[in-house]
Amino acid sequence: MVKDYVDPPAAPLIDAAELTKWSFYRALIAEFVATLLFLYITVSTVIGYKSQAKSTTDPCAGVGILGIAWAFGGMIFVLVYCTAGISGGHINPAVTFGLFLARKVSLIRAIAYMVAQCLGAICGVGLVKIFQKSHYNGNGGGANGLADGYSTGTGFGAEIIGTFVLVYTVFSATDPKRSARDSHVPVLAPLPIGFAVFIVHLATIPITGTGINPARSFGAAVIYNKAWDRHWIFWVGPMVGAGIAAFYHALILRGGAAKALGSFGSQTQVV
Amino acid sequence: MVKDYVDPPAAPLIDAAELTKWSFYRALIAEFVATLLFLYITVSTVIGYKSQAKSTTDPCAGVGILGIAWAFGGMIFVLVYCTAGISGGHINPAVTFGLFLARKVSLIRAIAYMVAQCLGAICGVGLVKIFQKSHYNGNGGGANGLADGYSTGTGFGAEIIGTFVLVYTVFSATDPKRSARDSHVPVLAPLPIGFAVFIVHLATIPITGTGINPARSFGAAVIYNKAWDRHWIFWVGPMVGAGIAAFYHALILRGGAAKALGSFGSQTQVV
Amino acid sequence: MVKDYVDPPAAPLIDAAELTKWSFYRALIAEFVATLLFLYITVSTVIGYKSQAKSTTDPCAGVGILGIAWAFGGMIFVLVYCTAGISGGHINPAVTFGLFLARKVSLIRAIAYMVAQCLGAICGVGLVKIFQKSHYNGNGGGANGLADGYSTGTGFGAEIIGTFVLVYTVFSATDPKRSARDSHVPVLAPLPIGFAVFIVHLATIPITGTGINPARSFGAAVIYNKAWDRHWIFWVGPMVGAGIAAFYHALILRGGAAKALGSFGSQTQVV
Amino acid sequence: MVKDYVDPPAAPLIDAAELTKWSFYRALIAEFVATLLFLYITVSTVIGYKSQAKSTTDPCAGVGILGIAWAFGGMIFVLVYCTAGISGGHINPAVTFGLFLARKVSLIRAIAYMVAQCLGAICGVGLVKIFQKSHYNGNGGGANGLADGYSTGTGFGAEIIGTFVLVYTVFSATDPKRSARDSHVPVLAPLPIGFAVFIVHLATIPITGTGINPARSFGAAVIYNKAWDRHWIFWVGPMVGAGIAAFYHALILRGGAAKALGSFGSQTQVV
Repeated sequence: MVKDYVDPPAAPLIDAAELTKWSFYRALIAEFVATLLFLYITVSTVIGYKSQAKSTTDPCAGVGILGIAWAFGGMIFVLVYCTAGISGGHINPAVTFGLFLARKVSLIRAIAYMVAQCLGAICGVGLVKIFQKSHYNGNGGGANGLADGYSTGTGFGAEIIGTFVLVYTVFSATDPKRSARDSHVPVLAPLPIGFAVFIVHLATIPITGTGINPARSFGAAVIYNKAWDRHWIFWVGPMVGAGIAAFYHALILRGGAAKALGSFGSQTQVV
Repeated sequence: MVKDYVDPPAAPLIDAAELTKWSFYRALIAEFVATLLFLYITVSTVIGYKSQAKSTTDPCAGVGILGIAWAFGGMIFVLVYCTAGISGGHINPAVTFGLFLARKVSLIRAIAYMVAQCLGAICGVGLVKIFQKSHYNGNGGGANGLADGYSTGTGFGAEIIGTFVLVYTVFSATDPKRSARDSHVPVLAPLPIGFAVFIVHLATIPITGTGINPARSFGAAVIYNKAWDRHWIFWVGPMVGAGIAAFYHALILRGGAAKALGSFGSQTQVV
Repeated sequence: MVKDYVDPPAAPLIDAAELTKWSFYRALIAEFVATLLFLYITVSTVIGYKSQAKSTTDPCAGVGILGIAWAFGGMIFVLVYCTAGISGGHINPAVTFGLFLARKVSLIRAIAYMVAQCLGAICGVGLVKIFQKSHYNGNGGGANGLADGYSTGTGFGAEIIGTFVLVYTVFSATDPKRSARDSHVPVLAPLPIGFAVFIVHLATIPITGTGINPARSFGAAVIYNKAWDRHWIFWVGPMVGAGIAAFYHALILRGGAAKALGSFGSQTQVV
Repeated sequence: MVKDYVDPPAAPLIDAAELTKWSFYRALIAEFVATLLFLYITVSTVIGYKSQAKSTTDPCAGVGILGIAWAFGGMIFVLVYCTAGISGGHINPAVTFGLFLARKVSLIRAIAYMVAQCLGAICGVGLVKIFQKSHYNGNGGGANGLADGYSTGTGFGAEIIGTFVLVYTVFSATDPKRSARDSHVPVLAPLPIGFAVFIVHLATIPITGTGINPARSFGAAVIYNKAWDRHWIFWVGPMVGAGIAAFYHALILRGGAAKALGSFGSQTQVV
């Protein structure tokens, strides 16, 4: 059976040539700007909601957790749509890490993206603090943290599974098999990716506030500077979840396990 | 008139050959994982909302029934998008049953999918209980059940019609006529399917909590183990609804009735 | 300049041939079933919300007007998606009337569709009443009516403009120019049409409960039988709005006015 | 490397020929009508919500800020979808200004569009006032203004960044590179543009009520006539934001900066 798609070769770990190209630096700028906008808009929504809920005479006017979840998911939809053609539209170190494990980006590019994302996140949250300092400081600063009554293990597990859902969706949307067969996938992929972020927020805002994006958690922690307790959860959890998603996609969904085992007869059945 | 599409041949009832292929087992794994994630995320949303509504000083912060409906519908959108190319993206024994009646999957595959879905659902709800045991037990366990003041017949009817809406959408989205004419349908179909799930939840959460997916109802019932009363509604109702949708599609929409009756002149008018 | 699209010929007023085709009766069945499902799901949402809001201890749990608007808009998205290939997916006498004015359906088909839609709507609301009689009667029956403090003229105007938005979107989505250039439009068109319905509900539920669909208003009025006051608003308003949209599309957007005036030089500039 | 796309030539500043074409005047009518509908529907939602919140016994029924944000974003999605093929679907002087800076529309067309948009906005808000005068006057008239506790600089900054997000999305969606490679982009682009408007409203309604559209702010200010304080924010802010987006797109994303600097070797790497 002839394959109707081509897997691109694995990205090299270190690709000195890409450092000489403008497109590499343009991608870093795009990741920086997109993560800045992501944090600015979403943390503004969180802070705006919380200050409004305190002061208003209409307790039901605010956007609530549902609106906050839409802000995170909707911005990811919009920003992945805008930056996919420039940088791949990661906007999240866990996504970058997962794609690095799958050898879709080089080590150098992965590290540079993560630095750009973290700097963008810090600047985005910083803008919120500059714009509305007292509201920002008085309403938790948009920082992630374990809610009362949940154990460290629960928060850690929630971050792992939540990030797994996101990165699994990213892998499904960017699979070369899919792209070859549906030429419009690059345009449509941002919508399910955004929805994945939206729904995971619905499920885990009550537990951790929902990280599933180390840059998002780190940027808010740096600017707020009062929520470093167990901050490792928001780095290790997403990275573990992204790693599991990368291996699930490579070993199970793309048939790597069957190829390795050599079982089930000829390889051509693994399409 | 020449048809511009080809109906695939009916799937055999028992296809021993598919048992030798890795793609069959990969599909089972994908159904198991997708149903696990579906239940984990949606039941987390239900439990998180209910515990938050009890303890918070801001009674309007929570996602409410609207957010819960989004969690169910949005996850189906994302997961059907991710698994459509691997297993067909059923994630629901009623969908599998409907597609089996339409002879789109073999009997063996149908049974294996249902087992994988139910196991996945049990594990997904189990994770929620492990993560937050007291919240889980104190807030209904995400189990389906008839609300006060509704008769058994009402709940049964609500499950039948709700599942009819879902499976009717699935048949419309996966019709070979449609696929032949719109090559990008496989990518777009998950969105209306997810919306169907979302809207049915808006309508029937006040009645039954909305099953329309026996694996979802069964998984929560097993783990919660206090909501077995009239559990048959959540199996028989969806299966009946899926069956009606399969016959509606085959007899009315695809013209089987006209062909059988032999009326209305030549068959070629039935396109 | 060569046109890259073909306007289909105007539908005849009376086309006896279509009465001999199974596809005509199949379309009627599809319109009946779709309108039945539309009313069943949306009125269930309205009644379920209102009874829940009265009885619950959690005043913010319910879906509210936002959820009700999603139910109407989301169902139109799903049902237009499902029935577009069978009947054109009208599900609304005002849409049928607008497409009749544009000579896209014959007079016979238009009348038959409207009858099927009204019967479907009556049956759909009837199911809600059968399923939950006391809730149904005690919560307004899902019927449209002018809210306190609004004049007849305001309600009439709101119905005209709301239906204009809907039918204008339908014309834009089904324009032959668009279809010729974007082959996937038939699949994508239902989404903006559903959104138009959703947003119009956000704007006018406080005024009239939002009709913009005579079958929807008529079905609820028949079954509830206590809301016939000024019912004409919900027939004349939508029909006027649909008519204005048909003329706006034909005269302005498709350039009929310029052609008629003969001004602005050659006709080929009107593309 | 051969480019697989063609950048259209820059629009002339003054193109007398377009004044002789019906398509020019048709575009003005389409912008007028679309902006009228946009303001009518969105301000109706705002006024309807506020009057309902005051008078109802069910404080949580209303659509809240989340519903208002959906009204603005959803209408932009629908209206851009409907008018993209007629006028380009600007419906916003800031979008027109950004596209003028990028030389995608002529100066004459830009000015004419802005006038049509402002007139449409005035008429749209005027309709709301005619329909429900006391509700309109008693609930703030849908006008933008700085909320208590926010400085002029914060409001100005919020308008700049919010409009940047919108116009950046518009540029990404209409890029010739993207269009050449994905022929269906013109149909899909309205969705992320609408979502951008939706999410920016979630973030900045608590600060300025969210303008990011001078016609929207101007129309409400004219009709309400009590909210002219610091109205310049809603003109200068969006124009600055649109300008930054235009330069960001031209200099960074499309590689203009690299070309200008002549660094990074051959130009063909800038794709």
